[in-house]
Amino acid sequence: MTDFTQTRQQFILPEGVCYLDGNSLGPLPKATSARVAQTVSDEWGAHLITAWNSCDWMAKPRALGDRIGRLIGAEPGHTVIGDTLSIKVFQALAAALKLNPDRRVILSDTGNFPSDLYIAEGLLKLLPVGYELRTVAPEDVAAHITEDVAVTLLTEVDYRTGRRHDMAALTKRAHDCGALTVWDLAHSAGAFAVDLAGCSADFAVGCTYKYLNAGPGAPAFIYVSPRHAERAEPALAGWLGHKMPFAFDIDYKAGDGIDRMRVGTPPVIQMAALEAALDIWDTVDMQALRTRALELGDRFIARVEAATDLVLVTPRDPSQRGSQVSFAHPEGYAIMQALIARGVIGDFRAPDILRFGITPLYLDETDIDHAADQLIDIVATDAWDREEFKQRKAVT
Amino acid sequence: MTDFTQTRQQFILPEGVCYLDGNSLGPLPKATSARVAQTVSDEWGAHLITAWNSCDWMAKPRALGDRIGRLIGAEPGHTVIGDTLSIKVFQALAAALKLNPDRRVILSDTGNFPSDLYIAEGLLKLLPVGYELRTVAPEDVAAHITEDVAVTLLTEVDYRTGRRHDMAALTKRAHDCGALTVWDLAHSAGAFAVDLAGCSADFAVGCTYKYLNAGPGAPAFIYVSPRHAERAEPALAGWLGHKMPFAFDIDYKAGDGIDRMRVGTPPVIQMAALEAALDIWDTVDMQALRTRALELGDRFIARVEAATDLVLVTPRDPSQRGSQVSFAHPEGYAIMQALIARGVIGDFRAPDILRFGITPLYLDETDIDHAADQLIDIVATDAWDREEFKQRKAVT
Repeated sequence: MTDFTQTRQQFILPEGVCYLDGNSLGPLPKATSARVAQTVSDEWGAHLITAWNSCDWMAKPRALGDRIGRLIGAEPGHTVIGDTLSIKVFQALAAALKLNPDRRVILSDTGNFPSDLYIAEGLLKLLPVGYELRTVAPEDVAAHITEDVAVTLLTEVDYRTGRRHDMAALTKRAHDCGALTVWDLAHSAGAFAVDLAGCSADFAVGCTYKYLNAGPGAPAFIYVSPRHAERAEPALAGWLGHKMPFAFDIDYKAGDGIDRMRVGTPPVIQMAALEAALDIWDTVDMQALRTRALELGDRFIARVEAATDLVLVTPRDPSQRGSQVSFAHPEGYAIMQALIARGVIGDFRAPDILRFGITPLYLDETDIDHAADQLIDIVATDAWDREEFKQRKAVT
Repeated sequence: MTDFTQTRQQFILPEGVCYLDGNSLGPLPKATSARVAQTVSDEWGAHLITAWNSCDWMAKPRALGDRIGRLIGAEPGHTVIGDTLSIKVFQALAAALKLNPDRRVILSDTGNFPSDLYIAEGLLKLLPVGYELRTVAPEDVAAHITEDVAVTLLTEVDYRTGRRHDMAALTKRAHDCGALTVWDLAHSAGAFAVDLAGCSADFAVGCTYKYLNAGPGAPAFIYVSPRHAERAEPALAGWLGHKMPFAFDIDYKAGDGIDRMRVGTPPVIQMAALEAALDIWDTVDMQALRTRALELGDRFIARVEAATDLVLVTPRDPSQRGSQVSFAHPEGYAIMQALIARGVIGDFRAPDILRFGITPLYLDETDIDHAADQLIDIVATDAWDREEFKQRKAVT
């Protein structure tokens, strides 16, 4: 059983700040500074080029991938870290399309994170004519998985509303129709237990700077199902995805399995921060985390709904939501700026959504109650200057 | 005039190590650890998500790009950092091909870094049929720039031999034939003054962990000529290349100029290390650096040639070489391992090349003489066990 009073002790939480934006950028774990300093001084500084071998830098993308793999239900050896999430979306989508060569449709939804759609658009402009990105409302996805769909490109949890797709059902539906699936786990990894293998997901990608707390610009990850691992064709065929990178052959030969999804030199210093963050995650029971997140989320919803006219846009049903709570309000922008001015950090997403990340690793009832009280006070009273906060520049 | 005894003082050089592998991974600047620690603790730790604005993280890829831009002769505002070099090659190549839509040939050479060729191969598999990667010997490139070539994809300095292409002449030849140019500056940036604008180069890319000393996994850079800046189509259309990333539109609209070559969230911690490294470069006169590098290189060549049977593979003519010196020897692998065992770090590239990076920022005559003496001693005497070093695992 995970002791969340203990995990909270492992983070630096600035005095006077109540942080409900860990779904944008997780806070700094206490161990990170020393780990990063060690990598910079004791590894790079002392070992120079030889650190690639002596400090095992070259092996870390796979090792870190597997530690994330536990949180997302991946088979060991099928997850690797590197690059950014947008790059990993490109890799997964390009590989999935190649594995389904007789079809031309990518199906996504309007609740997807825009970058995933942009990346798909960019890929389509490279491919021969005839490919199509079909974007439907999130609730219509299942009905639109038809026999012409090559790949579904879906983010499991909607970044604005917190609405969660049914990964098992949609993956099964896709497979029944002969389509493959690319799942974006940006708001899933570290938010709850994902079961990629159990759902027979084909490809998955995600980032590590949100719930996983690996820091700004932390590397992304990619998972390829063992079913496709040896057939997936890497569109971004960088040297570290080569079967023998240091042979310096001029012809490309894809590496074994997930190794082929590596591209260039891994970000060693950012990897040190990821490693420190995962030391905390290694101790976390994902079911306990989920139970706690739902308790805290329900508590926040109940208090806010009882005292304000904010409209909950996150589904109430636990099976249909991630680990954020979002409310709509016509004055949402100004309310969020006023809240941040009081030290309660959430964020705002246009046109009217106030978004709060519920992260039990470092939030407890006291934080939830404090955040709710401040929010209620702002919405329910005239103790703040609406016009002033409307004009404020956004800080999150 | 740059004082190279001063720049040397700004690096941590481990006791007993003579480092001639800065063309693989530059050493640690003294200021880097504190700068990285500050970004981790004082920025991420204290400001959390608000640091994206309050600490100017979002603006850094452009600001850092321009500081590199000075070293490579780029017009201000046309260089940006991010991702890895392989990703940047993909972006530049894909954009260049789109700008020359009636042609189908990418021309490269067998001396190119293999990853550039792999990336081109990977891109070709995405594109409609008919595209071709044509690879010729480095000395035959000019003759093969013909009317069917869409883009030349060349690394200015050969990573093995140190042979340098004539950027001005080849770019002119390409333009005369209606082709565009992508220059890889991996072994140029920080090695000597590059003159992208003066050569009318179209696209350029490079990395920052070699001569620029930004650390393992440091971000890459990309340059797009002002002539193409508003027409270059981004193949990796990530959200930070969008005209208004935080509007979260679901349709892609390319950002202004070089901004469109941004993809995902920039690596903030690695950027801190790059920033500290560039503080040194800001003080360096590139002509003085070049003069000094040639002096030190000639000194090394003269001493080694006078006392061994190593065969120089780097051109003697300064205009035809970069800032490394490479020798061939049938026992090259064992010799390099023996040299490293004595604390002189260079590296070996198959089949028979010993490679030495000449980096005046932190190397002087004493280092050059010491390295040469050790190399001479190993090659010219039997004071080492050839068989033992043949079996040693490579450490660089």
